[in-house]
Amino acid sequence: MSGVRRVSVLGSTGSIGSSTLDVISRQPGIFKVAALASRSDWQLVTEQARYFKPAFVALYEKEPALRARDMLKGTGIEVLEGVEGVLEAAATDKADVVLSAIVGAAGVMPTFAAVQAGKIVALANKEALVAAGKLITEEAKHTGASIIPVDSEHSAVFQALMGQDHSAVRKLVLTASGGPFFGKDAAELAGVTPEMALDHPNWKMGPKVTVDSATMMNKGLEVIEARWIFDIPGEQIEVLVHPQSIVHGMVEYLDGSVLAQMGVADMRVPISFALSYPKRLDLALDPLDLAAVGTLNFHAPDLGMFPCLGLAYEALEKGDGAPTVINAANEVAVESFLNGGLSFTGIAEVVRSVMDDPPEFDDQTLSGVLHGDQLARAAAHGIIGLYGDVK
Amino acid sequence: MSGVRRVSVLGSTGSIGSSTLDVISRQPGIFKVAALASRSDWQLVTEQARYFKPAFVALYEKEPALRARDMLKGTGIEVLEGVEGVLEAAATDKADVVLSAIVGAAGVMPTFAAVQAGKIVALANKEALVAAGKLITEEAKHTGASIIPVDSEHSAVFQALMGQDHSAVRKLVLTASGGPFFGKDAAELAGVTPEMALDHPNWKMGPKVTVDSATMMNKGLEVIEARWIFDIPGEQIEVLVHPQSIVHGMVEYLDGSVLAQMGVADMRVPISFALSYPKRLDLALDPLDLAAVGTLNFHAPDLGMFPCLGLAYEALEKGDGAPTVINAANEVAVESFLNGGLSFTGIAEVVRSVMDDPPEFDDQTLSGVLHGDQLARAAAHGIIGLYGDVK
Repeated sequence: MSGVRRVSVLGSTGSIGSSTLDVISRQPGIFKVAALASRSDWQLVTEQARYFKPAFVALYEKEPALRARDMLKGTGIEVLEGVEGVLEAAATDKADVVLSAIVGAAGVMPTFAAVQAGKIVALANKEALVAAGKLITEEAKHTGASIIPVDSEHSAVFQALMGQDHSAVRKLVLTASGGPFFGKDAAELAGVTPEMALDHPNWKMGPKVTVDSATMMNKGLEVIEARWIFDIPGEQIEVLVHPQSIVHGMVEYLDGSVLAQMGVADMRVPISFALSYPKRLDLALDPLDLAAVGTLNFHAPDLGMFPCLGLAYEALEKGDGAPTVINAANEVAVESFLNGGLSFTGIAEVVRSVMDDPPEFDDQTLSGVLHGDQLARAAAHGIIGLYGDVK
Repeated sequence: MSGVRRVSVLGSTGSIGSSTLDVISRQPGIFKVAALASRSDWQLVTEQARYFKPAFVALYEKEPALRARDMLKGTGIEVLEGVEGVLEAAATDKADVVLSAIVGAAGVMPTFAAVQAGKIVALANKEALVAAGKLITEEAKHTGASIIPVDSEHSAVFQALMGQDHSAVRKLVLTASGGPFFGKDAAELAGVTPEMALDHPNWKMGPKVTVDSATMMNKGLEVIEARWIFDIPGEQIEVLVHPQSIVHGMVEYLDGSVLAQMGVADMRVPISFALSYPKRLDLALDPLDLAAVGTLNFHAPDLGMFPCLGLAYEALEKGDGAPTVINAANEVAVESFLNGGLSFTGIAEVVRSVMDDPPEFDDQTLSGVLHGDQLARAAAHGIIGLYGDVK
């Protein structure tokens, strides 16, 4: 890297966004924050802005934008609002790198905008590639944007591919902790509450991705994400349950060699890597001590107990709009589960129902995909309404 | 790779040499055998020669060379003899790659000759770098020879460094199976017989390296080898006991990432990699199935029970001729153990004694190093003579 890298952080007030700012604060000579974007957390984003002094801040919601503008009066930091504000943070020529960490399908348009602007896109929003992977990766080819994954599993695979013979890849392996319910039986799963689902054993993450981890839909979405980032068919992407979350991902080559990336379960590692690639920075984290860890375990995933993973493979095989549909249906189902409107095992049932009778839409354009996303959400809401009655 | 790679196999009748020819036989369009060299096994080397049709065969010992010449009459395959014959196999312009697998200090001169000739040197003879690492790596810089390690641990580290930020390496990790005596107590170790030492749990190797594995001197020599191959101080090279021998080596980077290379314990994997680097070939081996393996364990090595490992670190720290001395003393001690002339724990005692009162020699020239090797051997023989009395 030569010179300071200017970073725009989309979703700066979430879990990944905060970790990103932590990494940046440890490397003041190397990174500068160009812009911050948040949905509505005007309190935290103005605090962040006072510390990191970006050129501007964007808030998606109008009321919080007004509050933030008030708070930042006299600092010279501009406050933009609405989807235009967030898209400006994604495409601004004040940034070299865009860290895309807006959760869910809301991240699709900003991610696309960053790719369209030819940025280095450090991608934590997996839903963008799940819903619109083909469109985004094709656009990246046109604009020369590079997509560096931030998800620990994809970062691991990315690192295990660097400098290697890509023509000799046999398969990619994404590890899964198995979540908090690994090894539980069907009756136990049916009684899972949001509190139980939000208590992840290894990773501290936002609520949506934590529930997705518990259902293993997160791993399913990651398989779809990997398909696009690494341009490889789903059959060559394997999931392996690894409760310790030390080995994050692997690449198996034709000669029998398996290259793996390991590390402590700390998102700052893949975040830092995505921001500084191809260089690595000293994060002064406690090193991985394998002798102290002692044991690493690996198991094949149980698709019977965690049907969401199988549904994701199915969506990938169906292709076309199916990944958009599974992503949208899952988001609605998880939200409903968190609000007490759906049981834990109901999440997979809702997704399955929407997938069985999918909405029709044009999956060849971004607006078509976003429309499909809306249609699938509506379908999921409809089904949850029915389920609600029987719950 | 473009075109056929012509390979000279030094030590073709040993364990690594045979595996190398197995790899080559699976890839007829990719490799061609240019030359074969063996100490004395005229029967096997003539068989190999009839199959692989090299330009010539070299036998170090005179009588076997005569036999081989007789056997290969009419085939057009020349038979060279003596050290000159072996050096011709190392430096011949008929070869692009020299697989150096002569065991022990006998491999030093041929390895140096291959490096001097600017070959791609696929290095299985670790003693060459232990005894003369500085001379050989400096010569490689002059001639442009590249040294690709064949030892599974070094191959792993080499692979985990490819394409990565070398300025951000924190440490290299070589794994050790712990050998057949991992977890044994002092009394049990004292009673170890050659048969017990030769029964390695994971790897099929020649007798010298199998005994070295049992004492962990093998790992110590590998630490010294790694110091030269990767140009990194001994303090940054760590040994980790890993009984399953699935993870062969790792590189820890400053950002906390650890890249590891794994695979089934089959020397054909690193051999093939060294021959085809930077490409990888499909060896059609059974793939690593981590879910079936289930568990990987890691422990810190027990330097109290396996003093040879500590002695090797000590030799590396002392520098100058100390690694030459430890290597020579160990070879003599192992030979004596295999012949029933020394107890298992006596190996470390003999090495320690020779190191405590090391011979003086010029370690700045190859002839000086080879002289030092002879002096250290004589010293070891002298000490074993004394031990022999008390055994």
